[in-house]
Amino acid sequence: MKVLVLGADGYLGWPTSMSFANKGHSVVCVDNFSKRRICENIQVKPLVELPTLKSRVKLWNSISKNKLKFYNADITEYTVLKKIVRNEKPDVIIHYAEQPSGPYSLIGQPEGEYTLVNNLVGTHNILWAMVEEARDAHLIKLGTAGEYGESNVDIPEGWLEYTYKGRADKRLFPRQAGSLYHTTKVLDTDLIWFFVRMFDLKVSDIMQGPVYGQFTAETDQHDLLNTAFYYDDVFGTVVNRFVAQAAAGIPLTVYGEGGQTRGYINLYDVMQCISLVAQNPPENGELSIYNQVTETLSVNQIAERVKYAASELNMNVEIQNIENPRKEAENHYYNMENEKLKKLGLEPHIMTTQMLVRMLHYANKYKDHINEDLIYPRVSWHK
Amino acid sequence: MKVLVLGADGYLGWPTSMSFANKGHSVVCVDNFSKRRICENIQVKPLVELPTLKSRVKLWNSISKNKLKFYNADITEYTVLKKIVRNEKPDVIIHYAEQPSGPYSLIGQPEGEYTLVNNLVGTHNILWAMVEEARDAHLIKLGTAGEYGESNVDIPEGWLEYTYKGRADKRLFPRQAGSLYHTTKVLDTDLIWFFVRMFDLKVSDIMQGPVYGQFTAETDQHDLLNTAFYYDDVFGTVVNRFVAQAAAGIPLTVYGEGGQTRGYINLYDVMQCISLVAQNPPENGELSIYNQVTETLSVNQIAERVKYAASELNMNVEIQNIENPRKEAENHYYNMENEKLKKLGLEPHIMTTQMLVRMLHYANKYKDHINEDLIYPRVSWHK
Repeated sequence: MKVLVLGADGYLGWPTSMSFANKGHSVVCVDNFSKRRICENIQVKPLVELPTLKSRVKLWNSISKNKLKFYNADITEYTVLKKIVRNEKPDVIIHYAEQPSGPYSLIGQPEGEYTLVNNLVGTHNILWAMVEEARDAHLIKLGTAGEYGESNVDIPEGWLEYTYKGRADKRLFPRQAGSLYHTTKVLDTDLIWFFVRMFDLKVSDIMQGPVYGQFTAETDQHDLLNTAFYYDDVFGTVVNRFVAQAAAGIPLTVYGEGGQTRGYINLYDVMQCISLVAQNPPENGELSIYNQVTETLSVNQIAERVKYAASELNMNVEIQNIENPRKEAENHYYNMENEKLKKLGLEPHIMTTQMLVRMLHYANKYKDHINEDLIYPRVSWHK
Repeated sequence: MKVLVLGADGYLGWPTSMSFANKGHSVVCVDNFSKRRICENIQVKPLVELPTLKSRVKLWNSISKNKLKFYNADITEYTVLKKIVRNEKPDVIIHYAEQPSGPYSLIGQPEGEYTLVNNLVGTHNILWAMVEEARDAHLIKLGTAGEYGESNVDIPEGWLEYTYKGRADKRLFPRQAGSLYHTTKVLDTDLIWFFVRMFDLKVSDIMQGPVYGQFTAETDQHDLLNTAFYYDDVFGTVVNRFVAQAAAGIPLTVYGEGGQTRGYINLYDVMQCISLVAQNPPENGELSIYNQVTETLSVNQIAERVKYAASELNMNVEIQNIENPRKEAENHYYNMENEKLKKLGLEPHIMTTQMLVRMLHYANKYKDHINEDLIYPRVSWHK
């Protein structure tokens, strides 16, 4: 297959690019390095300095027989994207090219507008490029489990069959997200579903839980092939942040009561999932939605697991509840259905002590890099 | 009340501005004339040339004791909008400032991107301006009944209470619109609901059906105070288009089988509704949604009503079914609930023969202006 990876410099984009190449597919990487620019602007750094994409592609191409191709391009420029799609004729387009941080999207109006325009215009451009140049390509769009919010009913995989006053219908499960960024993903889904049913595109939309971990079969081939490990308040998701806090010898900061419950997934399993989704495209005119999570955990449970794993390494870890900068329920019902990917063959790697110990080893190795000032929340929902 | 009308040069914006002024409110008009520029670009003209907003404001101010104030401003420029909101301190913000045409939004990628960015950035800016400058202002946002699409269940006023696997929840009724423009209104609603619940804003979102007619208590005061009457394929809604076709002596063009059914409303009743909504603001943190329609009709029924009204004027009208340029159900269930506005006091003026005869008189008076080439659909959903 010819696979176009949009956002290939990112936490998921880079390992995904290598993973598809390693399976023998022809992979074309696209990025405009907007996340690196944002990190510079807000003075955030990953735990280990990230080599340039150019150097990582060069390294990969020197050790693998399946080479990566790379475009430095901004998908919000339609003529640029259209030309790439026309030239490359992808079978699969994987769309990770979005501003992915909830806190960043709520810093202020400019960051909100940037997130809204970047994410929506990018998605709209991809859909138009498919209409004009690649009607039969399969778009795999990274959504987020956060689109659903804290649902008081079980969360089906994307669709809801309901009755009202004795009549029945089936529609997108009504979404309700907790940040502006997560809301742009809701809007993406609405937009995609319009294009799918109007222009017979085929799209898989992935409702992915927060990802943790940084190892895949391909990153393990060379230290410099690692993906980014962010532990800060803006780009660091909770598990990576807790692991960094444990390594730095500072308390794990639980926002509020810590009963916030979500579905999580390891990076290793994300690679499995994307591969399975790519092998199982929907029909033209069909929007296939997956709940891409492997286990459901509260923030308190994660903190306890990290603390326990750390104790295996004789590290002493404290847990501290701090004021919640977000506006969210801290104790609520949560149950996300996640059968579709398992039926396709997903074998989950859950958040075991062994898994966390490997992450702690990695963080310990670089603990001198940790800047404590980046960990505590700087963006508040309470404006 | 101090009322800020965004999109005050438009079909609804102009009569709304006069209507609130006439009721003794202080009205501030804002427009950037984007619709006039679009009309120039696609070579569309209203039935009667529209005087500039400046001249209409001047005329109104010469005959009314309640003066209008006017800003030539683009609300997609945040600093500009924020300054207006800070200076004017509105109690009510009425948001009509969007690209309002389904066919225009689907001409091609550039028109789609323009619609998406104009509508979403404008709405996002208004919400931020409220967060920063007018936390207690009441936003009245013009949505569209088209957000709901062809629902197989009755359409409640914005919210759905549902059960799934024995548990219950209440969320926004799942929307599914039939054009990119209508989809931007779905996205607006998602975005607004996020800001309402996160930042305790108060918003009324109006799911308005296609509007017809061009008379209000205020337009009747002077010919030059009329609002725009578009009859073309891009901005002309079906009733106005049929009336123009009848006046021009050409067949009424029904798209496809003509069973497409929607809720409609007369311009006169829109003025009533907006006034009632303004008098009944929601609480902070509440999104109040209204289904703003007064009667449900199929395209065939409207064609028959126009034909019958024309026969009263001894005009001979034919009805012609043409290929449907849109992708939509042509025979379907449709029932929109619309009790909330009636409970607030709305007295509907439905599409009577008398109402249509008045519209036909108006169109007949200017029938030499009608350009037949503008009537037939030029934009297709079948790309």
